[in-house]
Amino acid sequence: MRIVAVDVHDVRFPTAAAGDGSDAINRGDYSATYVRVRTDSGPTGSGLTFTNGRGNEITCAAVRALAHHVVGRDLDDLAAHQVEFWRSITADPQLRWIGPEKGVIAMAAGALVNAVWDLRARVAGKPMWRFLAELTAEELVASIDFHHITDAITPEEALALLEKQAAGYEERLALLEKDGFPSYTTSVGWLGYPDEKVRELTRTAVAEGWRAVKMKVGGPIADDVRRAEIIRSEIGPDALLMMDANQVWDVDEAIANMARLRPFDPYWIEEPTHADDVLGHARIARNVAPIRVATGEVAANRVIFKQLLQADAIGVCQVDACRVAGVNEVLSILLLAAKYGVPVCPHAGGVGLCEYVQHLAIFDFLRVGGSLDGRMVEYVDHLHEHFTDPVRTRNGRYLLPTRPGYSVELKPESIKQFSFPDGPAWA
Amino acid sequence: MRIVAVDVHDVRFPTAAAGDGSDAINRGDYSATYVRVRTDSGPTGSGLTFTNGRGNEITCAAVRALAHHVVGRDLDDLAAHQVEFWRSITADPQLRWIGPEKGVIAMAAGALVNAVWDLRARVAGKPMWRFLAELTAEELVASIDFHHITDAITPEEALALLEKQAAGYEERLALLEKDGFPSYTTSVGWLGYPDEKVRELTRTAVAEGWRAVKMKVGGPIADDVRRAEIIRSEIGPDALLMMDANQVWDVDEAIANMARLRPFDPYWIEEPTHADDVLGHARIARNVAPIRVATGEVAANRVIFKQLLQADAIGVCQVDACRVAGVNEVLSILLLAAKYGVPVCPHAGGVGLCEYVQHLAIFDFLRVGGSLDGRMVEYVDHLHEHFTDPVRTRNGRYLLPTRPGYSVELKPESIKQFSFPDGPAWA
Repeated sequence: MRIVAVDVHDVRFPTAAAGDGSDAINRGDYSATYVRVRTDSGPTGSGLTFTNGRGNEITCAAVRALAHHVVGRDLDDLAAHQVEFWRSITADPQLRWIGPEKGVIAMAAGALVNAVWDLRARVAGKPMWRFLAELTAEELVASIDFHHITDAITPEEALALLEKQAAGYEERLALLEKDGFPSYTTSVGWLGYPDEKVRELTRTAVAEGWRAVKMKVGGPIADDVRRAEIIRSEIGPDALLMMDANQVWDVDEAIANMARLRPFDPYWIEEPTHADDVLGHARIARNVAPIRVATGEVAANRVIFKQLLQADAIGVCQVDACRVAGVNEVLSILLLAAKYGVPVCPHAGGVGLCEYVQHLAIFDFLRVGGSLDGRMVEYVDHLHEHFTDPVRTRNGRYLLPTRPGYSVELKPESIKQFSFPDGPAWA
Repeated sequence: MRIVAVDVHDVRFPTAAAGDGSDAINRGDYSATYVRVRTDSGPTGSGLTFTNGRGNEITCAAVRALAHHVVGRDLDDLAAHQVEFWRSITADPQLRWIGPEKGVIAMAAGALVNAVWDLRARVAGKPMWRFLAELTAEELVASIDFHHITDAITPEEALALLEKQAAGYEERLALLEKDGFPSYTTSVGWLGYPDEKVRELTRTAVAEGWRAVKMKVGGPIADDVRRAEIIRSEIGPDALLMMDANQVWDVDEAIANMARLRPFDPYWIEEPTHADDVLGHARIARNVAPIRVATGEVAANRVIFKQLLQADAIGVCQVDACRVAGVNEVLSILLLAAKYGVPVCPHAGGVGLCEYVQHLAIFDFLRVGGSLDGRMVEYVDHLHEHFTDPVRTRNGRYLLPTRPGYSVELKPESIKQFSFPDGPAWA
């Protein structure tokens, strides 16, 4: 089976007006650089990267620039030479320069690489979590480029870690089939929402069974304190309250503000400062303990995650499915997190991120992390209706996906309706 | 005076075939995302960001996405509100997501922001180095966004540093007018060149007066050793030999390989590993001392430089003029380097980078760093003929630019000839 074409769609949902998704630093129209790889034999694969509105045309252009590394490739050959394939995309001798391995070009690589993985899982007739979980330890290790991370984890260590976690696989799978995967909701406390909407949404979330909720902070601190008070009073003392500053604070400001928010017993503080600031996160972590520091949604690549872990800068690893260069790079980050004993709670929300990361969290539990302790997948109740295989939740838990693939296929009518700039939604 | 339009040109020079610019990780056609801002009163400003061939259309698209922050702005108003202006570009609530502050979107910001600074300098009738050097300390500090770096340097500290360096300005300027600014050449040792070409080019460089040369390493180590031997034998024991691995090594590999190359007395090892690896650079620096670690040409922003300095990871700061978001961000990096006592030796080569950074190095000496100790500007003898105000060197030193602006204006006939894909050079 040979890949014969890569289609790219600029899909944008007009969410900015409602304040959905507004935080201390981002306000936009939730968008997807949507990629479909087509084959000479029928099956297709879908991948996407999430963007925030304007600029989606730039990531689309980047996918087009990378597509020639995929078109013409035989699927079995590509599967058998994963590192060579992945490097052809991420270390292209001309395109690497405009990253390197970060920003637009890494996000485009993520969409494209994920589309190929989706294709492989579909051809195998398995949901992505199962497709990954049923690869051998050797196949998983052979899918990872260890370049620039061997000072933290070697292929041999990765293999040993995977082999050690083989025990208990069936029990873990049975547990997930029975209960689903733990999650938390970010739908209660966007900065764009007035207090009364926050209170109402928190009540609804509690009624729906959520025992962990996340609020945005990073506005005026008095507002953050007032909203934290509302949410904590609604969820009670035992539920988890996470806070997310979306990078708006300087390092010392983060430390000072978390002292103000400490009375509301935050479980973690997410993105307390600039995402590139490994040393800053480490200093914040030392000062706000036992509150955990969480980050990862815009961490550019495995080298950033490596350092966050080496520096004891994070207590929660929030890898994103398409900010880094797709499944291959995510695998390296899951293994790094496991080696350093840090739980992975993937970033979701946006467009299709919940659909994506449920697979990663499930795989991580089954084969890498091996524990549910401190593990939760983010859940945001936005835009799932546009997917052919949307996430399903029950009592604040993700149910196991059952259909083949990576779950980010958009409905044809949604692509048409929300294509930018020519779809009816934007006319 | 009001900015009324932003023009963007995709200009590419077919350099790949000759092996010019080839190193351990990059091989391409030296290119520029070339930006011109036009005003309602005649004067124009030019900026560019350097890319490596394919992908230049992506940075061009990113400039177009950012241009609305510039078009319609009054030049005096914009000059009076520098941080607000700069943040409108770098913290755009939709476009920030696809960086943030890194890669394509930061490089595009660099071209655009620099074009506006070029315009300001031209309107003032001064070369950029003089335009900057004649701003007051308060004006310089007001041009810098200290967000996310206040844990390393505050506006008050920056002001104090600038005020302290005011003494001796005239003497330093007189010195530069007499001797020019020290530099080194990278034209001798690209990986694409055969040994005999390396030997010949080194001889020519010595004959031309160069006392500091840089070679590329990161190929098979035996080849690196052989080429180091050739170059050291040609330049003699007293000239400086810099080495540049362009990120190809893992951390432990860098330490091991530098042990092999130590006999040739390297002055610095540049980009020994992945550019994002602050902790890795710090470990390499501890292990290869007294050989200095140098990096910066793809360091994404002030937050990365802040950490490299905080972690004692670099002994040489190689800021690039357009990888970070233009003059404003460069100013913050020059001040950070001065605070931590690390000399700035800007990255050059590519397209127009020598033209750009001569101004930065001169300004740094006059107002910030205040010393020539360990300071050298990179020089590569490529593509200067396409600029209306090309660099001039004598005896291995840059002569002071005298014409107004930032020196990166391309000749109209070069833009036409090398426009991609329609220019005659690409037909």
